[in-house]
Amino acid sequence: MRKTCNLAEVAEFFKSNDCFGILTHQFPDGDTLGSAYGLCSMLQQLGKKARVLVNGGRPPKKFAYLEQLAQPQDFNVENYVSVDVADAKLLGELDVYAEQVKLAIDHHNTHKPFAWVYYVNPLASNCENIVELAGELNVTITKDIADALYTGIATDTGCFRYTNTTSKTHTIAAQLMDCGCDAAKINKAMFETVSKNKKALESYVIGNMEYFCDDKIAVAHTTKDILKKFNIPEDEVEGISAIPRTIEGVLIGVTIRQKNDTTYKISVRTNEGIDASAICSQLGGGGHKAAAGCAVDGTLQQAKEAVLAVAKKYIEEQ
Amino acid sequence: MRKTCNLAEVAEFFKSNDCFGILTHQFPDGDTLGSAYGLCSMLQQLGKKARVLVNGGRPPKKFAYLEQLAQPQDFNVENYVSVDVADAKLLGELDVYAEQVKLAIDHHNTHKPFAWVYYVNPLASNCENIVELAGELNVTITKDIADALYTGIATDTGCFRYTNTTSKTHTIAAQLMDCGCDAAKINKAMFETVSKNKKALESYVIGNMEYFCDDKIAVAHTTKDILKKFNIPEDEVEGISAIPRTIEGVLIGVTIRQKNDTTYKISVRTNEGIDASAICSQLGGGGHKAAAGCAVDGTLQQAKEAVLAVAKKYIEEQ
Repeated sequence: MRKTCNLAEVAEFFKSNDCFGILTHQFPDGDTLGSAYGLCSMLQQLGKKARVLVNGGRPPKKFAYLEQLAQPQDFNVENYVSVDVADAKLLGELDVYAEQVKLAIDHHNTHKPFAWVYYVNPLASNCENIVELAGELNVTITKDIADALYTGIATDTGCFRYTNTTSKTHTIAAQLMDCGCDAAKINKAMFETVSKNKKALESYVIGNMEYFCDDKIAVAHTTKDILKKFNIPEDEVEGISAIPRTIEGVLIGVTIRQKNDTTYKISVRTNEGIDASAICSQLGGGGHKAAAGCAVDGTLQQAKEAVLAVAKKYIEEQ
Repeated sequence: MRKTCNLAEVAEFFKSNDCFGILTHQFPDGDTLGSAYGLCSMLQQLGKKARVLVNGGRPPKKFAYLEQLAQPQDFNVENYVSVDVADAKLLGELDVYAEQVKLAIDHHNTHKPFAWVYYVNPLASNCENIVELAGELNVTITKDIADALYTGIATDTGCFRYTNTTSKTHTIAAQLMDCGCDAAKINKAMFETVSKNKKALESYVIGNMEYFCDDKIAVAHTTKDILKKFNIPEDEVEGISAIPRTIEGVLIGVTIRQKNDTTYKISVRTNEGIDASAICSQLGGGGHKAAAGCAVDGTLQQAKEAVLAVAKKYIEEQ
């Protein structure tokens, strides 16, 4: 039977066990990695054995500085725990351990219980849960641990910009800064460093953006040929879909990305109460009010016409 | 005699006087306007008469939402105070009141005293000083006041990214969020909204950026013709100089902007300890370690060659 627990019970689990394997989710981001390496260092500080398991073996280059938090230790894992993993399906290649996960610590209110015991507190980032756990475990938040936990908070809140940010997020950030975290350096690496090729792609995408309905709709696109031209792997295109909506006056920002020879993925981001999911659901997709998606078969031109027909009608009816 | 004072004395000044004119600095930004409108609303809440004076008469469009904080009142100003004004020279067209400023509240540690009495506390933003003053005056920080003060904190810290951000900044941000400020909305307006023309200019500048020394130097440029092509007034080019340094691997980011037919302004931003001011001082300019500037006479090509000669030597000597 899967059951929930409170933070004191989470702390008790760590105190009364040893030899932990900390699982992170696939396509690891700052929050799952920050949570994992922060927790690992905290457990080692308690004299426990712990290591972090990452899809692909090691964190992406951008997060390489987190690895130093886990001192290499020789042991067999006895207790698997997961951090920031909302669903067993998201364990990726680590799903071989799915049945053995004794404890899940997560912040997604969509969490689908898969661990024996789960602690889910829907704060803006899971790293905030780990900060609270540090208090419960009575460990010292060193500068390195503070850096790791700040990384998750900053990345999951878009550096305190997203609507998930609460006063608690800031209170915890203040606590981590008092512990010496190098917020400016982390933020520079996370938010202000882009590869030369990615920047050139962004420039191309912006330069080729099309506007409709008095600039209330902006449409950007990428194709396999364009990605090839700028030498950008498909999984690095993230971020592009945020661009059209940032233009002043744009209510519906559309990004069309070629998925394969005959299918295009459409991402819709909206401003001022326009319902993106209502637009995408008419094309067989779905999502949230401000961000939704769908897929359309055909050529780029056909995909564009399909989404524009719905979006234009939506603007006209406003 | 100009003299300094403490926060209790600042509060006493407001309690024992009335009919305030709150002066902001020229080219008004989020911190001077947030400080002024937040303070104005606080004083009106205390039953005092107060108004905000802005260069140009009204705040820039982006900050228009702050104006509602100052209820229009009919009175003659008896007490001028300034907020976020580091030097009388920065009062712009409001410098006619310079001699009459009874109190300056500022956060610049470079503050040059010009008011009869000045309170300077070098926090990240002057709005943090106003938050502390609210406590001293025992006024309620309403949602609108919280929005105004958060605006200054967010804009002066690059939304908590700059090195000036402290744990106190976050503690105060937490306090303002508890007062109901709409941080996500403010941040979207301040940081994620760009005009169509500005975005197109950015795209052009990035697309025409040149790289040197194994991509360790990136050089961007704008000319009067380019600005004309994209219909961007000269004073809206701000932000462009930040771009070259954001490219991964770039140590020296150079931006060359045409000032007039024969002069180019060069802005140098550096990473990883490279001294920008050392580079610019060789061309007759100066500045800080990570950001400096100079002006070069000649053509764009000559300006580029001049700064590259110095920058390349600097990289080679590393």
